[in-house]
Amino acid sequence: MAGNDVRVAKADLEHFVSKLFQGAGMEEEQSSTIARHLVLANLRGVDSHGVGRVEIYTSRLDRGIDSKSTKAKIEKESASSALIDGGAGLGIILASEGIKIAVRKAQETGLAAVGIKNSGHCGMLADYTLYAARHNCLAIAATNAPANMAPWGGKKAFFGTNPFSYGVPAGKEKDIVFDMATSVVARGKITLARKNNQPIPLGWAISKDGKPTTDPGEALDGGLVLPVGGPKGYGLAFLVDVLSGLLTGAAFGPYIGSLYKDLDRNQNVGQFFFVMRADLFEPLADFKNRIDQMIREIRQIPLADGFDRIYLPGEIEYENALEREQNGIPLTSKMICELEAVGKRYGIPSPF
Amino acid sequence: MAGNDVRVAKADLEHFVSKLFQGAGMEEEQSSTIARHLVLANLRGVDSHGVGRVEIYTSRLDRGIDSKSTKAKIEKESASSALIDGGAGLGIILASEGIKIAVRKAQETGLAAVGIKNSGHCGMLADYTLYAARHNCLAIAATNAPANMAPWGGKKAFFGTNPFSYGVPAGKEKDIVFDMATSVVARGKITLARKNNQPIPLGWAISKDGKPTTDPGEALDGGLVLPVGGPKGYGLAFLVDVLSGLLTGAAFGPYIGSLYKDLDRNQNVGQFFFVMRADLFEPLADFKNRIDQMIREIRQIPLADGFDRIYLPGEIEYENALEREQNGIPLTSKMICELEAVGKRYGIPSPF
Repeated sequence: MAGNDVRVAKADLEHFVSKLFQGAGMEEEQSSTIARHLVLANLRGVDSHGVGRVEIYTSRLDRGIDSKSTKAKIEKESASSALIDGGAGLGIILASEGIKIAVRKAQETGLAAVGIKNSGHCGMLADYTLYAARHNCLAIAATNAPANMAPWGGKKAFFGTNPFSYGVPAGKEKDIVFDMATSVVARGKITLARKNNQPIPLGWAISKDGKPTTDPGEALDGGLVLPVGGPKGYGLAFLVDVLSGLLTGAAFGPYIGSLYKDLDRNQNVGQFFFVMRADLFEPLADFKNRIDQMIREIRQIPLADGFDRIYLPGEIEYENALEREQNGIPLTSKMICELEAVGKRYGIPSPF
Repeated sequence: MAGNDVRVAKADLEHFVSKLFQGAGMEEEQSSTIARHLVLANLRGVDSHGVGRVEIYTSRLDRGIDSKSTKAKIEKESASSALIDGGAGLGIILASEGIKIAVRKAQETGLAAVGIKNSGHCGMLADYTLYAARHNCLAIAATNAPANMAPWGGKKAFFGTNPFSYGVPAGKEKDIVFDMATSVVARGKITLARKNNQPIPLGWAISKDGKPTTDPGEALDGGLVLPVGGPKGYGLAFLVDVLSGLLTGAAFGPYIGSLYKDLDRNQNVGQFFFVMRADLFEPLADFKNRIDQMIREIRQIPLADGFDRIYLPGEIEYENALEREQNGIPLTSKMICELEAVGKRYGIPSPF
């Protein structure tokens, strides 16, 4: 946390952000869904997917690119599946609705797959897989994203950072949630570095001409992020695009619109959720005892050199949330100015 | 390929291996299923999962550890799911049966999940996901494995290399199949290096005392492989263990028996398959046109420095298979001796 950051209370930030989306013309309920999601990302320390997105989301609403009256229209449905046409709506609203449908169907039939097309950037996938875990379901979530990564061996953007997340319900331990970009790092982290005028580590990205760079600007302006583990990350990004793009009828690869640059069209991002009841095969109590046992045994493993702790998947984010819930969410003054400028557009006073 | 390798015809090798399993007391049909699978692995260049496993598989049958009359008993079933109790049978037989059930159920209901417990080492996952792709389904397969990898930050084995595979049907292009270990490399590759007296590259594994090593023996004897991408590979290995171990009721983490060392008990490995029709959301022809388009566009991407080609997931293995089908499968003389020694045990003459 930089010295000039201030801490703002979760409730204040959420209320302000919700007002901003209402100012942009969205209904109160949908506005509060988006606000809750973005502030949750900040709470969990995933600042790249937090309130830093308010400015671009609302700008796109103002321009009429994304739909203010987002509706998740079910285009095709079976007992265990649904395809949602998002009608150029906001991804966070659509994905929040999509995971609810998937969980409900999984509770009824054991397992479910839900796809969304004509969607937009849906924020932090962990929000959706955590929702499923809280409902005693295991969930896998994927979304494609604007191209900024080449297939392994290439130097032209084709895949997005194409994140992948899962959630697993635990018993007495905390639910497990894992959320990864298939690139070495999420593009959002580079965006945040540029926003904060910080350099990025070598190995995260290459510049436009295929050279390693520490300049987030070079990485973002025509540069490319690299897939994690080379061909492995490439293979995972490919799967994410098949699930969320090809299967659903959303755009794929380089045809996905940029959130920031393509201000004349919906992104046509796709999302995919697979959800199954944790007791599909064995009794729920058995499953929960076993996951608790696994979590506890992992905690007891002796540490390798250079580590002071073994974290469970998602545990760092969980502890960030505890700390920020208590002490407030750190925002840079630049970030606060940005939110206040959005507020001025709609005549909404700053609470800060 | 080392200078002392010989090339053997696929059909001869498959016939011989099938005879060996019949010699070990298995029925003809199951023997030919295993032989086809192992030789397919060699054909695809995945020699670590090929006929090099005949010796240990048959030894375990001889000792009565694994069941000669492997039966996939369905313990729990719904329209879209099945839990199979493998009854300490051979993993390849059980997984071959499991993916067939999953594909049949997916064809009927749109999607399916099948879990297997009390199973054994199931060879190369790509065989199962390819089967689904050939039936116009998208499949995800996972299996846990004996512990040889620590959670990120630890120095004691907990997870196996826990592989993960997917298959996607294409139209005029070749079906896509991807198969990765969640470690930097599969343990089988280190086993093969030891078998062939070759060193391993630095970065694949650490020794018993947590130091980097190039000696496959050090890596295998109490050493550990490292997860790909650090916390990312750890998170993926965790998911694979949840899907194939925790959900199904199979063993998990350090409780999975070693194929080579635990010669007094079944491994109790678990497998998990998720299968969905490629036309669950959109018409099949549309999906196939889109995947073909994606494949062709990836091929046209300009090359990064140091690369002479971009491969699709599984394309290297596909081309290996074409070449080896034509020119024979390269086996070391040591490998042939090993197979012939198994033949001698059962009075089966060598065709080589």
